Amino acid sequence: MQNIIERLLQGDRRALARMVTLIENEAPAASRYLAELHRHSGNAHIIGVTGSPGAGKSTLVARLVREYRRRECKVGVIAVDPTSPFSGGAILGDRIRMMELAGDPNIFIRSMASRGNLGGLSASTRDAVRAMDAAGYDPIIIETVGTGQAEVEVMRTAQTVFVVVAPGMGDDIQAIKAGILEIADIFVVSKMDKPGADQTVAELAMLLSLDSNRKQAEWRIPIIKTSAVKEQGIAELADAAQKHRTYLQESGMMQSRAQRQVRSELQALILQAVTKSLREAVSEEEWHELIDDITKRERDPYSVARELEARVGLNGA
Amino acid sequence: MQNIIERLLQGDRRALARMVTLIENEAPAASRYLAELHRHSGNAHIIGVTGSPGAGKSTLVARLVREYRRRECKVGVIAVDPTSPFSGGAILGDRIRMMELAGDPNIFIRSMASRGNLGGLSASTRDAVRAMDAAGYDPIIIETVGTGQAEVEVMRTAQTVFVVVAPGMGDDIQAIKAGILEIADIFVVSKMDKPGADQTVAELAMLLSLDSNRKQAEWRIPIIKTSAVKEQGIAELADAAQKHRTYLQESGMMQSRAQRQVRSELQALILQAVTKSLREAVSEEEWHELIDDITKRERDPYSVARELEARVGLNGA
Repeated sequence: MQNIIERLLQGDRRALARMVTLIENEAPAASRYLAELHRHSGNAHIIGVTGSPGAGKSTLVARLVREYRRRECKVGVIAVDPTSPFSGGAILGDRIRMMELAGDPNIFIRSMASRGNLGGLSASTRDAVRAMDAAGYDPIIIETVGTGQAEVEVMRTAQTVFVVVAPGMGDDIQAIKAGILEIADIFVVSKMDKPGADQTVAELAMLLSLDSNRKQAEWRIPIIKTSAVKEQGIAELADAAQKHRTYLQESGMMQSRAQRQVRSELQALILQAVTKSLREAVSEEEWHELIDDITKRERDPYSVARELEARVGLNGA
Repeated sequence: MQNIIERLLQGDRRALARMVTLIENEAPAASRYLAELHRHSGNAHIIGVTGSPGAGKSTLVARLVREYRRRECKVGVIAVDPTSPFSGGAILGDRIRMMELAGDPNIFIRSMASRGNLGGLSASTRDAVRAMDAAGYDPIIIETVGTGQAEVEVMRTAQTVFVVVAPGMGDDIQAIKAGILEIADIFVVSKMDKPGADQTVAELAMLLSLDSNRKQAEWRIPIIKTSAVKEQGIAELADAAQKHRTYLQESGMMQSRAQRQVRSELQALILQAVTKSLREAVSEEEWHELIDDITKRERDPYSVARELEARVGLNGA
């Protein structure tokens, strides 16, 4: 055990890669290792990058990684795909461009995919961030494929969330309004070289000015204009992220967000243990029978729940 | 105990009203009563009505109630407001029109509001439906104020979901795409007397034709055109709901949906018991200390979770 932990803490990339694989496979050893790694984490700035497919997230992240390398940071990237059960699939194909960077020992890139349950994916992402953080990566960038509920869940691990919008994807503005406005810290308009870019900026500005909840907050969401082909706006974006990090620290928000995250992590871990106990105590066949009895009105859900609680040993059940 | 149950089963509205209050207040007696009521439920058609504020849901529901009364049904209505901690507030104000119907003993109308946690609201709604179902109401209409995540959660209790869109709310189409398309069984365009109504119908038809997931399903989502002022389309809507109910029954979907709901209800009940045990075993002050220790890296979340699991008695912890 000490071996992989020590090597990881010394910055051995193969030890880190092995750890992330253990996390992804939900290996029993992983949580023992993570308990140890937790003590060494808490230093990285965790940046989330979300937006619709086609918004230009991967290219933006690649440019951002290069910018952070210019600033002599050790950069971690986690690409999360809740729609795919395979890591290293489509999302990794898109990021061949990033792979050119992969020869650099101060860059660590990893894809993570869903193993069927989304709660598991947020937990794995959080643990992978913890491992990369302990290994000295800072910042750590989490990129998702889309903007669904699963992605919003994953983004809760991030301290600073970029929402990326490309020109001519006007539909996105409504989707943002409906779904992810509440988690945005910085808006990024990508592809400023494309027609309609200024209109997209104007629409976002309008959206922000109408958002009464946000108006009361001390942080004003900036809109950063970028162009990957012209290599514009990337340094500004890294500066805005830094500014947001400082804001979180000075306002005490970093602390309160961390506490909220710990609370939800504890609840998730306990829930996971309950689920595991239930799976061990009740066979899938018995589940089916119980559910059948309830739907046929031969039993009621309340007494069945109490019986199951007693079976997993829950106090007072 | 038998008294309130017997009176409720005989159709006593005051007994039903009292039961819904017990449910809303999460009174300890409620789950004993509900265990009994469960045996008498399972007959009602549960219809969910959702859509943005201003889509005309309340007026539509009022018209629909009248239509069902014409068909000699005993109708239940639950108006759910996740944004308000008070039941009987704003949402009830909007439905003065419905109150004119309230003299009819075969109509039971009730508002439910959030008591702080959204899981609790879906559970209360589900239990209130169970009580009204046992009291012989059929159909039971659940109406929500908006189309957020909480409303989607509440809608899972329904068997047939109406998504209501008013003309000139083009933004809604994008919101539907982003959020509630997957739960829609029937689209309702309200206010067909208003300008732009045909365009809204065309946009919805386009949206449905583009939705490849839906294309494979056997149920083709109909778009029902209604006008509350002209009293048009309401009978067609009730017919479409009946057709969907028949589809669910004949395809076996009614059965499989019921089973899925029972499974998630069991999980929710057990989770609720765990949360209750945790609250009893760990004071809020101790929670704060534990979270503080973890954020300061003095302890790790995994061992704290295991300790808490042992405290609530969980097997294997």
